[in-house]
Amino acid sequence: MSRTVLSSASKEVIIGFDQPFVMIGERINPTGRKLLAAEMMEGDYSRVQADALAQVEAGAQMLDVNAGIPLADEPKILAEVVQLVQSVTDVPLCIDSSIIEALESGLAAYQGRALVNSTTAESEVMERVLPLVKKYDAAVVAISNDETGISEDPDERFKIAKLIVERAQDHGIKPQDVVVDPLVMPIGAINSAGKDVFRLIRRLREELGVNTTCGASNVGFGLPNRHAINNSFLPMLQCAGMTSAILNPLHEGLVPAIKAADVLNGNDPNCANWIKTYREPPAEGEGEGRGGRRGSRRRRG
Amino acid sequence: MSRTVLSSASKEVIIGFDQPFVMIGERINPTGRKLLAAEMMEGDYSRVQADALAQVEAGAQMLDVNAGIPLADEPKILAEVVQLVQSVTDVPLCIDSSIIEALESGLAAYQGRALVNSTTAESEVMERVLPLVKKYDAAVVAISNDETGISEDPDERFKIAKLIVERAQDHGIKPQDVVVDPLVMPIGAINSAGKDVFRLIRRLREELGVNTTCGASNVGFGLPNRHAINNSFLPMLQCAGMTSAILNPLHEGLVPAIKAADVLNGNDPNCANWIKTYREPPAEGEGEGRGGRRGSRRRRG
Repeated sequence: MSRTVLSSASKEVIIGFDQPFVMIGERINPTGRKLLAAEMMEGDYSRVQADALAQVEAGAQMLDVNAGIPLADEPKILAEVVQLVQSVTDVPLCIDSSIIEALESGLAAYQGRALVNSTTAESEVMERVLPLVKKYDAAVVAISNDETGISEDPDERFKIAKLIVERAQDHGIKPQDVVVDPLVMPIGAINSAGKDVFRLIRRLREELGVNTTCGASNVGFGLPNRHAINNSFLPMLQCAGMTSAILNPLHEGLVPAIKAADVLNGNDPNCANWIKTYREPPAEGEGEGRGGRRGSRRRRG
Repeated sequence: MSRTVLSSASKEVIIGFDQPFVMIGERINPTGRKLLAAEMMEGDYSRVQADALAQVEAGAQMLDVNAGIPLADEPKILAEVVQLVQSVTDVPLCIDSSIIEALESGLAAYQGRALVNSTTAESEVMERVLPLVKKYDAAVVAISNDETGISEDPDERFKIAKLIVERAQDHGIKPQDVVVDPLVMPIGAINSAGKDVFRLIRRLREELGVNTTCGASNVGFGLPNRHAINNSFLPMLQCAGMTSAILNPLHEGLVPAIKAADVLNGNDPNCANWIKTYREPPAEGEGEGRGGRRGSRRRRG
């Protein structure tokens, strides 16, 4: 049974088949966020800090950090962001860049065992990313596409994932430290995208024995009421066997949907986590009225 | 591929692997509803009518009707309820009783092809219910328990379901007209209840080729925020392959959760149903303001 162990200086998180689903907060990413990008360029990380705290408060067990700003000094910014986020939260990080120097700089600045986001099956990418993953004793997200792009055939994507796992082993990286991203397409564009990914996740889990993750926020791209699409997608991914995802924990209803699926998957023993999170404040005697209820609410924070 | 065809006098509903999930409204049931029971006893069906209309309005494609009131003339009441509900809605019905005379009376009053709820694998029950199902050319819900009660072993429940399907065939009822209820236990009592039922549904679908249903409302029994448990449970059931459920479509968030899962399962071609249901009213020019928007809302009704 695969267990991917990630850590910060003081906290460990395990991605695994019998573990609560790991929510990796996606917000610290300047892509499509002009204001954040401009601030990060100027070394103003106040919004990064606020996003980090808000996501952890909302339930994220890990945070993705990305500093992909065109023309910026990405290695420098990513290292600074890693240090800043580690100074205000204790969750492990997912260090996210398409630039190898930025990954290395982020890893060098990181305290603990990080998740590197990501390698594809492109030879040139694997040959640069995998040695880095080994050097820093990290785990790695493996995206199932290669030089020919993203196949629409889930069997092809399974083969590509298998290839990355094998190549990682050649570099001394164990299969449990490869977390496969089967790639989720927008359902509005490809109607079979959901079914395909559910089947692929099952195969990756049952045949390859690896953990899985995905960027879960774009499946409803272009559709109305897209958050409702997401709030059903995550429990379905969990039912199919997915063990983590990169997502926005601030989206209404998403965290309860995921925690409920943990309960239903049998990964919240005695429903203890659910009950702790959602139980009503205990009644404190009729005389106390609203004052008593405020007191109860404080206790839950 | 199994297709269970149900009908009213004017409308057909298909339960099937490639069909939108069929929501069967559970509200017309006096169990645990004292006021409704008292009214039904007195022949006052105003609340039945309101419940029928509200559930169909909320999205139910079928309605379960049950008249199980201790000491009442259940056959008479059930027949009257069937007639009343068929006079105000056009959805097919699920005729629900543990009393054989009530089932027969309901079926005799019914126009169309009904779903009979239910038979177990108890010999005595099967020998009384199955001939009735055949006589009225109905379909039947098969509950996977027998004389020994409800097994906690999902493999045992699979065997029991298989037995009912075979016995139904002996009575001239085709497998596609048997909709298996794998039985859902409260997750707070049995932590593996979800996982067990997901696996069982997959086997029933892949190995036995039958449609499935369940009473979906009690899985969160005894837990706080239990509606959130339900809103994740249904998409997970759909991901596992369940094709219908008896539920309360008025519970907040449940119908969108199910329709989103239809989209993600590829059972809403081109997302057409989703887009029709949830699209924003079109902008009608800046001059019209709120009047224009009210107009749009009317058009959606």
